[in-house]
Amino acid sequence: MYMHTPVGIIGAGPAGLFLALLLSLEGIDSVVIENRSRAEVESTIRAGVLEQGTVDLMVEMGIGERMRYEGVVHHGIELRFDRRGHRINLHELTNGRAIMIYPQHEVVKDCIAARLQQGGQIFFNVQDVQLAGVDSDQPVIHFRHEQEQVELHCDFIAGCDGFHGVSRAYIPLSVQQVYSRAYPFGWLGILLQAPPSARELIYAYHQRGFALVSTRSPQLQRMYIQCDPQDDIANWSDEMIIEELQARLVTDDDWQLRVGPIVQKNIVAMRSFVIEPMQYGRLFLAGDAAHIVPPIGAKGLNLAIADVRHLARALTRFYQQQREDLLAAYSATCLKRVWRTEHFSWWMTSMLHRFPDDDPFQQRMQRAQLDYTVGSQAASMSLAENYVGLPFSV
Amino acid sequence: MYMHTPVGIIGAGPAGLFLALLLSLEGIDSVVIENRSRAEVESTIRAGVLEQGTVDLMVEMGIGERMRYEGVVHHGIELRFDRRGHRINLHELTNGRAIMIYPQHEVVKDCIAARLQQGGQIFFNVQDVQLAGVDSDQPVIHFRHEQEQVELHCDFIAGCDGFHGVSRAYIPLSVQQVYSRAYPFGWLGILLQAPPSARELIYAYHQRGFALVSTRSPQLQRMYIQCDPQDDIANWSDEMIIEELQARLVTDDDWQLRVGPIVQKNIVAMRSFVIEPMQYGRLFLAGDAAHIVPPIGAKGLNLAIADVRHLARALTRFYQQQREDLLAAYSATCLKRVWRTEHFSWWMTSMLHRFPDDDPFQQRMQRAQLDYTVGSQAASMSLAENYVGLPFSV
Repeated sequence: MYMHTPVGIIGAGPAGLFLALLLSLEGIDSVVIENRSRAEVESTIRAGVLEQGTVDLMVEMGIGERMRYEGVVHHGIELRFDRRGHRINLHELTNGRAIMIYPQHEVVKDCIAARLQQGGQIFFNVQDVQLAGVDSDQPVIHFRHEQEQVELHCDFIAGCDGFHGVSRAYIPLSVQQVYSRAYPFGWLGILLQAPPSARELIYAYHQRGFALVSTRSPQLQRMYIQCDPQDDIANWSDEMIIEELQARLVTDDDWQLRVGPIVQKNIVAMRSFVIEPMQYGRLFLAGDAAHIVPPIGAKGLNLAIADVRHLARALTRFYQQQREDLLAAYSATCLKRVWRTEHFSWWMTSMLHRFPDDDPFQQRMQRAQLDYTVGSQAASMSLAENYVGLPFSV
Repeated sequence: MYMHTPVGIIGAGPAGLFLALLLSLEGIDSVVIENRSRAEVESTIRAGVLEQGTVDLMVEMGIGERMRYEGVVHHGIELRFDRRGHRINLHELTNGRAIMIYPQHEVVKDCIAARLQQGGQIFFNVQDVQLAGVDSDQPVIHFRHEQEQVELHCDFIAGCDGFHGVSRAYIPLSVQQVYSRAYPFGWLGILLQAPPSARELIYAYHQRGFALVSTRSPQLQRMYIQCDPQDDIANWSDEMIIEELQARLVTDDDWQLRVGPIVQKNIVAMRSFVIEPMQYGRLFLAGDAAHIVPPIGAKGLNLAIADVRHLARALTRFYQQQREDLLAAYSATCLKRVWRTEHFSWWMTSMLHRFPDDDPFQQRMQRAQLDYTVGSQAASMSLAENYVGLPFSV
């Protein structure tokens, strides 16, 4: 089958879906292809923190209605160390900005519903995606869908297919520069059937390692503990996980971890990764296809949205004014925010985890950083402005 | 010879001299001993930046008169990278605080003059300093002075004899914890006979390494470049040093390094070091005897002054109210500021130097940190408040 679309979008994650919706608002057509099923895309548990700018954009795009009902606004987070909690008042420190707790897969559901409702095309369960002629004026996406071989001719291709996607490989090795950091620890994540243990997220630094308390719903909590990234989840009984959480989160006051059955558990490694440039010819990467951050600041989705917002504007300028300037500047424009966010995620990760090769001096530096972050207005503001998200122009 | 004094002070650097003067203001007598000559103490070139709090304290103590004439107030510093300068407006960012450029040896001269004028005792050129009974009520300092063996009986001993002094060794190994970090680079420092190249200090990050431009007087400039700490100064001709400074400081505008004869050059290694606790029995360490910071933020002298200010208050409380609470808390009180300052000095050092083992990701983190520090109000405030000096209560 032969098809044509102005913008071929590979990947129906937040990056690809937001791009399709943003383009559609400008009257620009696109086709989205995705190798997973709709059910899988809509049920994969990922992050759950939306920056203020992401929230505002969703509302502006007309896809914020369910989020406004079901999402929960948080005005602060807690940093916990040395058996004490310290609240960072995001709201006051950022002139009224905040974060929204609303899981990524719910965002994805809302995007897919909106896309289908407006009659937009999404091909799920595609196979054998290949790109051709990305440095020509008419690049092509080849893929198979329901036994049929499809040839999708495009003006532009958006590679929104995540870290393990195929798009990135079409930026020639000769022009790409890769920056990468593997961390010497992973996160053991659980879903816990219990009421929330706290009203806001708790980020805990402890000699035994980092722990994170977050909430999904009044009945379901998401918790993480730092672990060996090579560890096997089978080595961790439910009791061990709960004990470890309790040990790392203990305080001198009467705070209690509320426990219940663990309904899911897994271990994820973590890394930082950036490819430069994020574009080549008529191929533009966005989101995890171009960069990965460690999960601590929940920046992955938000950064992807910032990318495709730039890309949608650049494509709009091209189609409405025949100007390629924003397209030419796409990578450089995105990379400013990418590196800011990579730095913040690396910094927060470094502040809150135990590093296996730390010497006592380095541990004191970490502790001094924590004391300063909660004790200085300027340092708290710095954490807060990054956490709620800098303006999209950064 | 047998002598008695309430407080025996080992070392006539800023820590020892300020302590003697502060005690004298409270009517508490002391004896200062120093193994160098007065001429040597008064001519050794060290740092030259006084925090706002140090300046205010000197004025309050009545030793600020010459500083107010000869010192130069700076309201900002420049961070230079990627061929551009970025001014950090210390004054605006800290609600009107600033730094004073006034060399440490001039501070020392003023202190010695004040001490001698009030008839206070300073023994220069002492030898063979030994301590005894530091965990008793009457510790003793043994030393030789002008061929005579002196036994100085004290109520308290203040170890203000610097990193290479003997005092620290009297804190038993069994109770002391040492934190240390050697950096994989040193500073090649020069004194240059030339007019100032800039009105304020310039801290430059460059792929070739860090460079620092500072001023001593209208005719004499102090400059540093990052180098191998093992390097021999004989390997560096004057021309090489000037060329390296020019390469690292180059900008896209018309800024020029003003050159002239190099009248002094040397290489110093750099390290971070802290001993805990800073006290044992009746022995109290202050300044470099207890902690070393890398020189980038010029914090050594200022931190020493903060220590002895606490010690003077604690001793005053003891003599005037017979209360030992502040003395008991001395180490813990000082260490808060010590670790804050160690962290700041480590952070600023890490941001501005090239590390030999940096990978490309780490270099991007450094660059992102620099961009953020000059681009965010909160981040600039954070640098500024530390640079001008946090309140003594921290």
